[in-house]
Amino acid sequence: MTPETFKSEYGIDARVLHEVEEIDPENRRVLVKDLQSKKGRWEPYDRLLIATGAVPFCPKVPGSDAPGIYGLHSLQSGITVRNVVDTERPRRAVVVGGGYIGLEMAEALLLRGLEVSLVERGTQVMNTLDPDMGALVSKALVEVGIGLYLEESLEAFEAAGGRVTAVVTDRRTLPADLVILGLGVRPNTALAQRAGIPLGVRGAIRVNDRMQTDTPGIWAAGDCAESFHLVSRRPVHIALGTIANKQGRVAGINIGGGYATFPGVVGTAVSKICKWEVARTGLQEREIRQLGLEFATATIKSTTRAGYYPQAGPITVKALAEKGSGRLLGAQIVGIEGAAKRIDIFATALHAGMSVQEMINLDLSYAPPYSNVWDPVLVAVRQADREVRSAS
Amino acid sequence: MTPETFKSEYGIDARVLHEVEEIDPENRRVLVKDLQSKKGRWEPYDRLLIATGAVPFCPKVPGSDAPGIYGLHSLQSGITVRNVVDTERPRRAVVVGGGYIGLEMAEALLLRGLEVSLVERGTQVMNTLDPDMGALVSKALVEVGIGLYLEESLEAFEAAGGRVTAVVTDRRTLPADLVILGLGVRPNTALAQRAGIPLGVRGAIRVNDRMQTDTPGIWAAGDCAESFHLVSRRPVHIALGTIANKQGRVAGINIGGGYATFPGVVGTAVSKICKWEVARTGLQEREIRQLGLEFATATIKSTTRAGYYPQAGPITVKALAEKGSGRLLGAQIVGIEGAAKRIDIFATALHAGMSVQEMINLDLSYAPPYSNVWDPVLVAVRQADREVRSAS
Repeated sequence: MTPETFKSEYGIDARVLHEVEEIDPENRRVLVKDLQSKKGRWEPYDRLLIATGAVPFCPKVPGSDAPGIYGLHSLQSGITVRNVVDTERPRRAVVVGGGYIGLEMAEALLLRGLEVSLVERGTQVMNTLDPDMGALVSKALVEVGIGLYLEESLEAFEAAGGRVTAVVTDRRTLPADLVILGLGVRPNTALAQRAGIPLGVRGAIRVNDRMQTDTPGIWAAGDCAESFHLVSRRPVHIALGTIANKQGRVAGINIGGGYATFPGVVGTAVSKICKWEVARTGLQEREIRQLGLEFATATIKSTTRAGYYPQAGPITVKALAEKGSGRLLGAQIVGIEGAAKRIDIFATALHAGMSVQEMINLDLSYAPPYSNVWDPVLVAVRQADREVRSAS
Repeated sequence: MTPETFKSEYGIDARVLHEVEEIDPENRRVLVKDLQSKKGRWEPYDRLLIATGAVPFCPKVPGSDAPGIYGLHSLQSGITVRNVVDTERPRRAVVVGGGYIGLEMAEALLLRGLEVSLVERGTQVMNTLDPDMGALVSKALVEVGIGLYLEESLEAFEAAGGRVTAVVTDRRTLPADLVILGLGVRPNTALAQRAGIPLGVRGAIRVNDRMQTDTPGIWAAGDCAESFHLVSRRPVHIALGTIANKQGRVAGINIGGGYATFPGVVGTAVSKICKWEVARTGLQEREIRQLGLEFATATIKSTTRAGYYPQAGPITVKALAEKGSGRLLGAQIVGIEGAAKRIDIFATALHAGMSVQEMINLDLSYAPPYSNVWDPVLVAVRQADREVRSAS
């Protein structure tokens, strides 16, 4: 790796000057490499925090090293793409991958006036939603003017004159002046693995509730580390800034000699594509089936504000609950402004282990600019409660 | 009462033709008066629901019956004021009372181009907020252009030519073409009281969790009935549509032979004044002191979206928690668009009886259009947790 320099939004010039090349847990020391002199030296530690984050998946297809193809995994990579848009004025962009990064980049490029296509291998974008809710997002993408190509696999990139010129799928060739890769990330744990630090789910570093690894003196936090999923009650790897921040806080308190635990996550995430808001929390149908649980679902349509209020618009809320107990298992929301943040009600209820029956009478806020008298969340849990009863 | 006719927003003509004048629980019958013929007749009942709502407080001051003075307590009264604004083109409006109705009417009239003054007897508007948060609302009112007169008591109305011309306080005379009364409501329970049905807190009809009164065969729901406050664990009277609707649903299920209970409320309410959003839930400082509880508070300032995101704006969040246990007791929010609905996170946590410590790691949604990585709610509960620890 060469020194990376960037100027942050806040005007701070930052530069990576050193890099840890090896960890030697036996002797509690790390091999630090000076990126300019290329020299290394061993440095001792009492406590070590591994916060190496995640690395983006890169497709192994012909032409993937052509200039004009960008992944987004650091502040610098975002700045680079913005500079390219500003200076090179690309006209056509192709986004590969329909996850959060792909969708948010598609929005950003669309708003900058580019013609945007999105290629996704799966049957839907946003695969952390159930197919029925994902279909609403696909529809929204098309509505805002994005060319959507589902169930198409990336096969190659074409280049000419030292620049990418097209994205080739198994069905077509899409001309492109700019390509964005949004194929997801995996924990960046090569360093930890070489040091023999035990890894867990999906290759993330295994940690306890205090963010300690199984190796004495070594802690891990952020996108490189596992979390505990409070609904599935299993370890999970979710690479999101909210979780990384919370883990970092807990690790920092503990490393500093305090005491803190990170109880876990419920899998909340939210995104925005032009006027459309998308949110999810808890488990989706596929995950619930994998756990062998039986469940009921309820999907309701309502409005973000009182129906007669200006700027009221559609919101679809899906709630998933366990048969028998009625325990809330997850929820998904697609709608216009004001829709997405409602997912936090479900997230809080998941933390508290509430049933949909208990949620029916939640004293949620109402005034016409914000909601109907029965908030869409309440309508969904009422319906889910009925489904749980009729199903069990 | 004379027959009241109105045309609803949905084009339905509705007319009140009959009114119950007396309830005779002994013989399970009601005296029904035909409002046109003025004749009454006794009708038997098996089960009776009292849903008489609330009546607005009317000030007993000289001139209060002058034309041009309006209360707002029914759909018809709202329609009437709108018609007056449309046809009589009043220029100056004075709103008496700084509660939800007063503030929302002040906004509505301001948006219709009237010059609006608001008179409030107390030291702050929105007295369901603590004084520090109420002060933010007062500031917002002045900012949007409302003439605010705090700590002024209504003394009289002046009239000329058969119309109100001014509102007289103990400090000044405010010229007015239109006066709106927003002095709150009380449960409309005269009928119930005459029938000997036991009343409870603030004169509201006492009910159990199934919305049954203490009188066999008689149920009550809505603004005329009590609720149970889940945080103070005491009966309470809160006249809001959300509660009325939930109570009505529970009463209806039970009267129809089913089984449902209404566990209670946490005192959530929300309002909007132009660009400002105001929300509260749980107990405020005054109420906590009345219960003899000791508590800590935390008030934090943040932004509604990521600080660098367009349209990010101020949000102030106050959290109140019990000393020792750290149990969340209440929360208040004042901010711009996107601020208010966050109160539902606190409301859900209050239902679940969560402590601020348990809330610190809530997996709330984050993306730059919606929030900072640490949602303002999390920043507030983190601060409250520190206060609880340092105070105990």
